[in-house]
Amino acid sequence: MSTAAIEALGFCAALLTTFCWLPQAWQTIKTRDTSGISLWTQALFATGIVLWLIYGVLIASWPLIGANTVTLALVLIILTMKLRYG
Amino acid sequence: MSTAAIEALGFCAALLTTFCWLPQAWQTIKTRDTSGISLWTQALFATGIVLWLIYGVLIASWPLIGANTVTLALVLIILTMKLRYG
Repeated sequence: MSTAAIEALGFCAALLTTFCWLPQAWQTIKTRDTSGISLWTQALFATGIVLWLIYGVLIASWPLIGANTVTLALVLIILTMKLRYG
Repeated sequence: MSTAAIEALGFCAALLTTFCWLPQAWQTIKTRDTSGISLWTQALFATGIVLWLIYGVLIASWPLIGANTVTLALVLIILTMKLRYG
């Protein structure tokens, strides 16, 4: 497999694990149903994403910075809804 | 900041975004309440983690392989519970 193909695969992986949080954020905003969502998971996930973001800044990795900024914004929406309506 | 400190930060980030799925999997198994969980998000997230795992194998990155194997196992539990009780 060529390096370009492998990098394209990594790019698809990053796109999926970033934008997959859009339907969850949208559903949570629309329904305000957060009963099945674990507060611990959302809080620890948001903390982990903040650390990935700092790590990305420190090693100057734009893919890490970009992906984790989008993910953090979506996860903070879900976490806020959980704290408000959970 | 030293390289070792930066790598330790990345390691903490990976630990958090991997094991944060434990409380969600546990809660979902215990309560079978998946109403607030987006099926699209879980399906796309699981697909993304599979791609990260393949990418990790192709670039021979043990941290990627390890973290994504654990995450995939936990996310597949949540996805299975969503499909069964959603």
